[in-house]
Amino acid sequence: MSPRPEVPPRPVVSLLTDFGVRDPSGAVCEGVILSICPGATVVHISHDVTKYAIRDGALMLWCALPFFPVAIHMAVVDPGVGTRRRPLAVVVGRGDVLIGPDNGLLRPAARRLDEIRAVHELTSDAHRLHPVSSSFHGRDIFAPAAAHLACGLPVGELGPELDPATLIDLVIPDATPIPGGVATTVIYVDTFGNCKLAGLRQELEAVVGPMRPGRAVRIQADGAAERRLGWADTFGNVPVGEPILYVDSYDRLTLAVNQGNAAAELGLAQDQALRIQVE
Amino acid sequence: MSPRPEVPPRPVVSLLTDFGVRDPSGAVCEGVILSICPGATVVHISHDVTKYAIRDGALMLWCALPFFPVAIHMAVVDPGVGTRRRPLAVVVGRGDVLIGPDNGLLRPAARRLDEIRAVHELTSDAHRLHPVSSSFHGRDIFAPAAAHLACGLPVGELGPELDPATLIDLVIPDATPIPGGVATTVIYVDTFGNCKLAGLRQELEAVVGPMRPGRAVRIQADGAAERRLGWADTFGNVPVGEPILYVDSYDRLTLAVNQGNAAAELGLAQDQALRIQVE
Amino acid sequence: MSPRPEVPPRPVVSLLTDFGVRDPSGAVCEGVILSICPGATVVHISHDVTKYAIRDGALMLWCALPFFPVAIHMAVVDPGVGTRRRPLAVVVGRGDVLIGPDNGLLRPAARRLDEIRAVHELTSDAHRLHPVSSSFHGRDIFAPAAAHLACGLPVGELGPELDPATLIDLVIPDATPIPGGVATTVIYVDTFGNCKLAGLRQELEAVVGPMRPGRAVRIQADGAAERRLGWADTFGNVPVGEPILYVDSYDRLTLAVNQGNAAAELGLAQDQALRIQVE
Repeated sequence: MSPRPEVPPRPVVSLLTDFGVRDPSGAVCEGVILSICPGATVVHISHDVTKYAIRDGALMLWCALPFFPVAIHMAVVDPGVGTRRRPLAVVVGRGDVLIGPDNGLLRPAARRLDEIRAVHELTSDAHRLHPVSSSFHGRDIFAPAAAHLACGLPVGELGPELDPATLIDLVIPDATPIPGGVATTVIYVDTFGNCKLAGLRQELEAVVGPMRPGRAVRIQADGAAERRLGWADTFGNVPVGEPILYVDSYDRLTLAVNQGNAAAELGLAQDQALRIQVE
Repeated sequence: MSPRPEVPPRPVVSLLTDFGVRDPSGAVCEGVILSICPGATVVHISHDVTKYAIRDGALMLWCALPFFPVAIHMAVVDPGVGTRRRPLAVVVGRGDVLIGPDNGLLRPAARRLDEIRAVHELTSDAHRLHPVSSSFHGRDIFAPAAAHLACGLPVGELGPELDPATLIDLVIPDATPIPGGVATTVIYVDTFGNCKLAGLRQELEAVVGPMRPGRAVRIQADGAAERRLGWADTFGNVPVGEPILYVDSYDRLTLAVNQGNAAAELGLAQDQALRIQVE
Repeated sequence: MSPRPEVPPRPVVSLLTDFGVRDPSGAVCEGVILSICPGATVVHISHDVTKYAIRDGALMLWCALPFFPVAIHMAVVDPGVGTRRRPLAVVVGRGDVLIGPDNGLLRPAARRLDEIRAVHELTSDAHRLHPVSSSFHGRDIFAPAAAHLACGLPVGELGPELDPATLIDLVIPDATPIPGGVATTVIYVDTFGNCKLAGLRQELEAVVGPMRPGRAVRIQADGAAERRLGWADTFGNVPVGEPILYVDSYDRLTLAVNQGNAAAELGLAQDQALRIQVE
């Protein structure tokens, strides 16, 4: 393939919601964005966040946003739509603006993109669709705000500045030290069945020192038999069907089974408590 | 985020099909479009329309298209592919062109975008892929037509004009007045389990006057116990688990349960008949 | 719609993976690509390839890529991620570059796009994300390579040339001649339930001569009763509920049921052996 001429970049707007992929709601947001800012590139991070699962959405944003260019990121997992919860534009240190409800959804990702620099409440009537529905603020409030920002509107035009300390917080759980390991929980089961745990590699290594392939660990889930398995760099290095503890590509402690489904095979589910002890 | 320079808009082509998200068919249509009109922006409204459910697809287009910029909209829910049903380009008052089979799929949305201005049958050999398969007209007839229009081809080049009165019609059902309310049906269950009903707010209010939050309604589904519940502006204003009747963001009468699944909890399914009576 | 001005084309990067549509991994790859090559258009062919099913992914690429413009195509169905399997850039005769693991995934599509012209191993540290994780080479190795190529990097910069004869091969099965027909297998069940068979139209016709609508065939699946059905051009030409044998839009022998699910109704599943005999 021969070299190509430079193509001018276009503003990126990412979307993450629990709207589902069958219903047209995610695309309706894209339609609104393109109506207001025709040059935008819309990236759909996921519309299949478990319904109402704010923490799942927050974790996905925490994973995904550092790998995006500086952009406008709109996220809607919003069981409080139509109530008094505040619609926000959160400007972070890296330069991105996160758009969504004040329910904690945006906080872990904001913290990871060099913390909050400013927050504005989305109150400007001139930057909403009218009439504003009571159940689809993604379309009527968040998407228009994201689109106007993508096309260069200063964030201050969207509404008054808020004190970031007043935002609802949400902290993705950590692992807790115990003798020889950590107490933790399953915080996300991905579509491979890999079980992502509360806590990152460093939280385990702070207790037990460096983990190296083959080091044995014992996993004790509430109400289940203890399992003994090995630490590995990746599932591909153990026999098919063998379970391992490793860190996923976001440095998070994760249980996996090579070419299998760890959740099914280890009998684990989201929010289940676990103890990990290293031998 | 600092203001960005103006980026020139690109023609938008939206796609809605029942091809599913696992199979590559929706993306194949995008590939064909980009081969013919490399500057197009393709928006995927949904590829998960229930298989062969023309009315579901028609309702989704009716919801979505008013929120899109003027564009080319290709829709394929087409159990008659390969038979004599006609492939169409429908020009509507707003300026959009709707592309799809003559089976009613396009009619409700066309009516909503200021009615039909002209219809052409897609007969031009020069604007199809060859050989034309008998089972994938999305790829071989509809996507090429959409792409050529997006890049500026006059619609008349695609084939002869048809009398709009000859098109197969499809009407999204209304609610019917009964004493104290309306008789209606469930016409769509969304991925939240919300049950969208035949009929808009105005059809109920024509019988019972203005609905206000808290006004009590009785719901009687065929073969189920009567349920009493309240009208609300949105589900977020009632306790978690409580069912409500409200209008969705398209002004359609809808049954929902706050953070729950109304279809499951009220025992409702698509096409079920209901009577709604207001107290 | 009035003619539009020419919009300059942008480089296309297509993605096909088994990452699933709920998890953000596919979008993370798009984020990486847009970070490196902001002018790219990313097309998602599918992220719902059955987990670890290299042959399914290979078949989808074989179907889809001929309908795309010349582009960069990244494919990741990669149970060997993190092991010694080689990451590849495969330049094909048509001008496309296919990016993915050396496990056979890319071979059938490469063969179909005018065979392999050159292969390079993706070893360049300067064109990876760091640190390179052991379990997400899509993000850390393949997406950066695809993006650099899309923005004009010569493929030789990504790593040393390999002998194409050393690549792991994968051949999509053919049908085998038997008296009066072919022995074959179900190689893919699509989301309509259509059962795509090993072998193309020409392999059956080489044994039995030209197939024409209505010609009777007998289908004998292992452990099931023999079924008699007709050849058809398309399912829309037989009564609803009737099974047919036809060729899909890629000229592949396929069993379908008009507006029904052939896999369910004929009791077929992937990899099931079948004998087709024509009367």
